[in-house]
Amino acid sequence: MKSSNFSVNNGHLIINGLDTVELARKYGSPLYIICEDTIRERFREFRSAFSGVKSDIYYAMKANGNLAILKILGSEGAGVDVFSAGELYMALLTGINREKILFNGNSKTDRELKFAISSGVTVSVDSIDELNSLSKLAAELDARASLAFRVNPDISPETHPKISTGIRTSKFGIPHDDVLKVYGMAKELDNIDIKGIHCHIGSQILKLDVFGEAMVKMMDLVELIRDEYDLELEFLDIGGGLGIPYHEDDPAPTPEDLADVILPIFKDKSAKTGISPRLILEPGRYIVADSGVLLCRVNTVKRAHKTFVGTDAGFNLLARPMIYNAYHRILVANRMDQPPAETYTIVGPICESGDILGEDRNLPRIEKGDLLAILDTGAYGFSMSSQYNQRPRCAEVLVSGGHDELIREEEAVGDLIAGQTIPDRLL
Amino acid sequence: MKSSNFSVNNGHLIINGLDTVELARKYGSPLYIICEDTIRERFREFRSAFSGVKSDIYYAMKANGNLAILKILGSEGAGVDVFSAGELYMALLTGINREKILFNGNSKTDRELKFAISSGVTVSVDSIDELNSLSKLAAELDARASLAFRVNPDISPETHPKISTGIRTSKFGIPHDDVLKVYGMAKELDNIDIKGIHCHIGSQILKLDVFGEAMVKMMDLVELIRDEYDLELEFLDIGGGLGIPYHEDDPAPTPEDLADVILPIFKDKSAKTGISPRLILEPGRYIVADSGVLLCRVNTVKRAHKTFVGTDAGFNLLARPMIYNAYHRILVANRMDQPPAETYTIVGPICESGDILGEDRNLPRIEKGDLLAILDTGAYGFSMSSQYNQRPRCAEVLVSGGHDELIREEEAVGDLIAGQTIPDRLL
Ligand SMILES: Cc1ncc(COP(=O)(O)O)c(C=O)c1O
Ligand SMILES: Cc1ncc(COP(=O)(O)O)c(C=O)c1O
Repeated sequence: MKSSNFSVNNGHLIINGLDTVELARKYGSPLYIICEDTIRERFREFRSAFSGVKSDIYYAMKANGNLAILKILGSEGAGVDVFSAGELYMALLTGINREKILFNGNSKTDRELKFAISSGVTVSVDSIDELNSLSKLAAELDARASLAFRVNPDISPETHPKISTGIRTSKFGIPHDDVLKVYGMAKELDNIDIKGIHCHIGSQILKLDVFGEAMVKMMDLVELIRDEYDLELEFLDIGGGLGIPYHEDDPAPTPEDLADVILPIFKDKSAKTGISPRLILEPGRYIVADSGVLLCRVNTVKRAHKTFVGTDAGFNLLARPMIYNAYHRILVANRMDQPPAETYTIVGPICESGDILGEDRNLPRIEKGDLLAILDTGAYGFSMSSQYNQRPRCAEVLVSGGHDELIREEEAVGDLIAGQTIPDRLL
Repeated sequence: MKSSNFSVNNGHLIINGLDTVELARKYGSPLYIICEDTIRERFREFRSAFSGVKSDIYYAMKANGNLAILKILGSEGAGVDVFSAGELYMALLTGINREKILFNGNSKTDRELKFAISSGVTVSVDSIDELNSLSKLAAELDARASLAFRVNPDISPETHPKISTGIRTSKFGIPHDDVLKVYGMAKELDNIDIKGIHCHIGSQILKLDVFGEAMVKMMDLVELIRDEYDLELEFLDIGGGLGIPYHEDDPAPTPEDLADVILPIFKDKSAKTGISPRLILEPGRYIVADSGVLLCRVNTVKRAHKTFVGTDAGFNLLARPMIYNAYHRILVANRMDQPPAETYTIVGPICESGDILGEDRNLPRIEKGDLLAILDTGAYGFSMSSQYNQRPRCAEVLVSGGHDELIREEEAVGDLIAGQTIPDRLL
């Protein structure tokens, strides 16, 4: 969150002019708050960092697929990286320009491929099986399919192994050594238009030199493909992955910094080879992470082996701490004027010991009824949520210009049983 | 799954007389199959292993909350361990006897406590804050609240740390040294009926001696509480946690084995002290794990660093391999008559490198279109599922006596946007 969007009034955390204590009272808790200004600002940072070259920013909507966010980013001119039929459907529904949609994914069904072809969006192809399916299905539909190949560039960013996608051993992409071959195969296939090349090396990357490595490898491939097949690729998609400072003292690289690493390589190689594809970036986390705050209410404070603060949100709503051991800053939203008083471990209501939101945090004295704010939860927060332990998922509220708007209703217990049928004979 | 429920016909995996290839064709894939006979059999094993003492089996519905499963187990006489208002609602909806429902959880909202009180179910209290809330809310409702305390017995089973709940450092329970004190406090509070004592030491436990340790500690507490307060507890709930052999060569302890470990201690201490509380067990995994099979379709086979088999189910539907590095046996359901031919790594369609269902499996030659069966997925499978990457969750089918019944419809893309509103000004 832009610090200018945070303030304190009466000891309460204020976001974009709105009192979080009031918001939790109005909408209930837990509650996801999304700040529109922050999203627009983050997107514009990307936009302007790359405005010196033909480029497009495709928002990776897996980070947060809320329709209102897609609308906001669409109005800023974003394209979208989609990873499933569901995501494509939502991108089209919100009017994202289909010319600016890339259908990614390592394991697409024929139904998904058909939907992509008939929607006229470009497919990032991840395997030879998929290439063959795409050609066959395009022929069946009497249509042409546009593609890029997802390359596994064999690069190891310093990040969590579960999200290190461009490492040689990952499931993603065409192995670097096979790339030339698959472009050759694609050239020979019917109903296929070769448009670009794609990679995504990982997520939450704070040391940017690996993006430079990736750019060198990708531009070398662009040249090789031209030389081998006389084929000039229209776009080079270098993926997402720019990290954000979850810890106060993390490095905080900006899109400008990313541009400083990759644009010189890109421009230099373009000048040398005379090929200058459109450059696409696919940021997800950077665009939305710090726009989001998860508010949750304290149910209990228990003095045991540690002092545990039990809240009403757990890994059902925010899985990152449990899955990746990720760190999120936590504030006591109704005691912003009080000094740290004790070391607390913040936990959720889920039935597993791993359901910890924050360990050993120095915070103002906390009591039952207090409100906590978990920061930087706009990315991979709601999007990874579940109904585990039969907990309906919480509401999402958009704040903008001092106003709050409900953009997703809280689920009800009825939603837990929607679609279920008990066979008559069991009644 | 009882091996007697598995057979092979024409090279196809048959479950309970039904051809899985046909089931996937009829209902689509991915698809969760639940075998009713297996659930009944597992429950009856528990029932009979403990029939020598006053006892009850409370199914831990967090393992699989499907209404049809609750109905099946209710008809067998099961009680239910619930962990949220949603679970309580579902248990009541399916007619589970409220005398046999225990409301567990380390962080309950006042709303949940009120719902528990007004439903007349017993609450397992996890903290002093919660004890005070319970008394206060019961008074407000002009009702009485029945309780047990969840004890942290300070025991370390050999299992995954994320599910080792009875270890001293976990968020769960009243620290062992404070237990006597909280019973004293509860005695002094209004509107409170003290009914029992509860612990749950962890999940997927295959070495049963820790259950013996827990039983010693719990029966000692039962005696201490009687001696100190002249209070005879009506029940002792020793929790769930009996593991299952996910690996072919894992030990396969039975409820009988569990009874052999804990009943001698229980009976001995009962005889010595003259206190014999009703014994409650709360198995989740053991009851439903091997009743479930997840069917998924192969989208691609890619020869890269490894040979990756990309299916249509990922950690959106089965999170255990990603979260706990859990092992599930995988079969090629349409090639059951073919010998292992190659080493495959089975992955899902989700955007993270951690989306691996099975690593380095020796399986018959696999091609696009083949059907895989992931075994022992009845527990903590669907219940932990999400819509990550905007993937609607799959259907569940109950098989029984050679018949198949749809018990949960596949979600549709419309379900992904249910409850969302785009503010007018963004349209
Ligand atoms: C293909 C692709 N592009 C972009 C992203 C977005 O990554 P990030 O949110 O780290 O920017 C992902 C994340 O999984 C991805 O898989
Ligand atoms: C209180 C309680 N009881 C029972 C269980 C069921 O455990 P299992 O599925 O290992 O039998 C759990 C699991 O989390 C639990 O938290």
